Amino acid sequence: MNDLLNFLRIPSISALPEHAADVRRAAEFVRDWLDRAGLHGARLIEGEGNPLVFATWTGAPGKPTLLLYGHYDVQPPDPLDEWISPPFEPAIRNGNIYARGAADDKGQVFILMEAVARMLRENGKLPVNVKFLIEGEEESGGEHIEKYVASKPSELASDAAIICDTAMFAPDLPTITTGLRGIVYGEIHVQGARTDLHSGDYGGAAPNAVEAAAQIIAALKDRDGHIRIPGLYERVRKPGESEISAWKSLPFNAEEFREKEVGSIALAGEPEISLFERMWARPTFEVHGIRGGFVGEGSKTVIPARAVAKISLRLVPDQQPEEVIRSLEAALAKAVPPGITASFKLLSSAAPCMVDPGNVFVRKAADAMKKIFRHETVYVRCGGSIPIVGLFQQALGIPSVMMGFGLPDDNIHAPNEKFSIANYSRGIDAVVEYFSSL
Amino acid sequence: MNDLLNFLRIPSISALPEHAADVRRAAEFVRDWLDRAGLHGARLIEGEGNPLVFATWTGAPGKPTLLLYGHYDVQPPDPLDEWISPPFEPAIRNGNIYARGAADDKGQVFILMEAVARMLRENGKLPVNVKFLIEGEEESGGEHIEKYVASKPSELASDAAIICDTAMFAPDLPTITTGLRGIVYGEIHVQGARTDLHSGDYGGAAPNAVEAAAQIIAALKDRDGHIRIPGLYERVRKPGESEISAWKSLPFNAEEFREKEVGSIALAGEPEISLFERMWARPTFEVHGIRGGFVGEGSKTVIPARAVAKISLRLVPDQQPEEVIRSLEAALAKAVPPGITASFKLLSSAAPCMVDPGNVFVRKAADAMKKIFRHETVYVRCGGSIPIVGLFQQALGIPSVMMGFGLPDDNIHAPNEKFSIANYSRGIDAVVEYFSSL
Repeated sequence: MNDLLNFLRIPSISALPEHAADVRRAAEFVRDWLDRAGLHGARLIEGEGNPLVFATWTGAPGKPTLLLYGHYDVQPPDPLDEWISPPFEPAIRNGNIYARGAADDKGQVFILMEAVARMLRENGKLPVNVKFLIEGEEESGGEHIEKYVASKPSELASDAAIICDTAMFAPDLPTITTGLRGIVYGEIHVQGARTDLHSGDYGGAAPNAVEAAAQIIAALKDRDGHIRIPGLYERVRKPGESEISAWKSLPFNAEEFREKEVGSIALAGEPEISLFERMWARPTFEVHGIRGGFVGEGSKTVIPARAVAKISLRLVPDQQPEEVIRSLEAALAKAVPPGITASFKLLSSAAPCMVDPGNVFVRKAADAMKKIFRHETVYVRCGGSIPIVGLFQQALGIPSVMMGFGLPDDNIHAPNEKFSIANYSRGIDAVVEYFSSL
Repeated sequence: MNDLLNFLRIPSISALPEHAADVRRAAEFVRDWLDRAGLHGARLIEGEGNPLVFATWTGAPGKPTLLLYGHYDVQPPDPLDEWISPPFEPAIRNGNIYARGAADDKGQVFILMEAVARMLRENGKLPVNVKFLIEGEEESGGEHIEKYVASKPSELASDAAIICDTAMFAPDLPTITTGLRGIVYGEIHVQGARTDLHSGDYGGAAPNAVEAAAQIIAALKDRDGHIRIPGLYERVRKPGESEISAWKSLPFNAEEFREKEVGSIALAGEPEISLFERMWARPTFEVHGIRGGFVGEGSKTVIPARAVAKISLRLVPDQQPEEVIRSLEAALAKAVPPGITASFKLLSSAAPCMVDPGNVFVRKAADAMKKIFRHETVYVRCGGSIPIVGLFQQALGIPSVMMGFGLPDDNIHAPNEKFSIANYSRGIDAVVEYFSSL
């Protein structure tokens, strides 16, 4: 575990340019570590952005080849003053490692690294072939890995991808994630008058861009959480009965969830749809931020000429980004109030994806996790998006096994991120068990 | 005019604390100037905020007493790089003085000062009694003058207030402003979840504060400009037929106004109400600014927990701020979507006011202006708010004569503020003519 602690000491924050050297240092750390562990050809794959780390062991002819994915970059640590111990000085408390990246994803990618290293150390060989592909732009939206994978390099040829970057549904409950939402992320730009105008002189004559943005948002999603984009729900695949009934048996208390996790006076979203289905199998429309006009201290009576709203739609099978973008743009055009022009600027998109729980790589992962955790593995979906999973499917034609060992309260992307040492250890055991079973 | 240029060289920006010494210097400049001009008891009235300048001449027993109001503070000059000549180095171009404060209000208050000084110089006396009351917080929302006037000091006793701080409707068109809108200004605070949440994990469950703010704004005002606050329009007094027909005869081209002044693809506001009525005699609801969530570069997928919108309602006779605030709060409570709490925080308010154009002080001002400008004086209303006018009415029981000599394109509150030298000169003549006629 000392090596993991050293890995965590590198502030490899990909979103902050001033940490570029640290990001590279983390890539080199992983490369050198895999080299010392006995992997072959450990190297950095350079490109636009941060390097990928690549290393293989292919000495098991006739056995499956697994693409082991993870990322060595981390989120920014702010707000710094809310950390109990400094984010890049790992501290052990209550059976957890506290550090930025402990769960997302350094601790989890180290499970894969350590499992492979242990088998090589103990047996001199692996029961399967592996190809490590560890990226450094997962937290900053860089596209190096996407471009690389999309180019379908023969060296990535494999039978399945293994990803440790998700969480368990609850402590001691081994969990495999079988579905991810896709995403369309962009900005709605709204323009009214040429410049900000005085509301005394022009109030009642000049269009107000912030009000127009509000009108547009309210037109695209109603107060009960229904997205009012014609056609949007047409391709939404209803989850199967077995999936829904599996969700119903998950240990979950909606009232506790509302109070402890969300902290609002009530939950939101389509009232006629159950909560897990809303979070995992329904599209969303969310406004992530809005700016426009005067927001300083005190009173200024401008009619704002411009407003920008950052928005996203999360997509579920079988929605496709291109079609959703067209529908959004059509609905936006209809929602624009008089005197206003508005446009949508796409920033990124990713297709939703599903992994068949009947797939042999998924089944054997579930069996291995059950054996180590001594509890039946549960299948959940994730409301978030991991674009690389869709790309592995599309470009390489392989399924992704998302076996995560994080916990819901690991504070990823927040102060006091942590990772359970017991889960770290059981994670390694589970991966060893899994690979040996293939 | 040299004295005015020196006055304009003082950067008396009341909104910027670093200019506090300049603000005081401007007050002292006015006090000393009035003293040298022959006014009596010129002094600074100190209080919380910037000093008032007070000076009198009361040597005309049996004649009316006029309270001469203006302000010596100015708006901040930014954006500085858009000024053709520096804002505090007055420059003469094309018959105009270019400087911050040229029209608002140093040039206009100097019309009153210079007119009085000229009469004292030429005749050794004035045809009326005058009391100068010049403030230094008009551009920063300070309340010193309001508190002072509300205390009804006997030294302010007078028959009418004269204010040169408005504009002419068009060049060469002498104009008196007979109505001002009131205002209720405040913030709508919206809260959803306890903190920002990840839209992947919580999208479909957590309420979104920015969307709620949009829902609320859209509920309070529809896309055609109708304010949806029950009861709001009940006390709106319809302008009289003579007033409306006078407005119709004003030289005005709505299409030119849209293109040159507003610059939007269409004008906004209640389509069934005429433009001047919308701008001068109808209440407004405007959102001046909004903030919430992530508005930086790139993509961040938070569900914002909080949002704040700065809003105002402009009020017209006979609306009263207290009643409007109650109606707004009731409508806000109804507009709040599920899972959200919202509240209104009042920042300031002022009642609307009307001046009877039949009042003798208004009529004689109109006659004097007509004589000097050789054109019938027009009566307009102003969509903005000058809170002191309502207070002069309420606390001192006197009407305000708003005879302004600015022009619509004087760029007040903007770069390259200017004031016509011809209007400065005609303004002095008009005030001399006016006072002599009383």
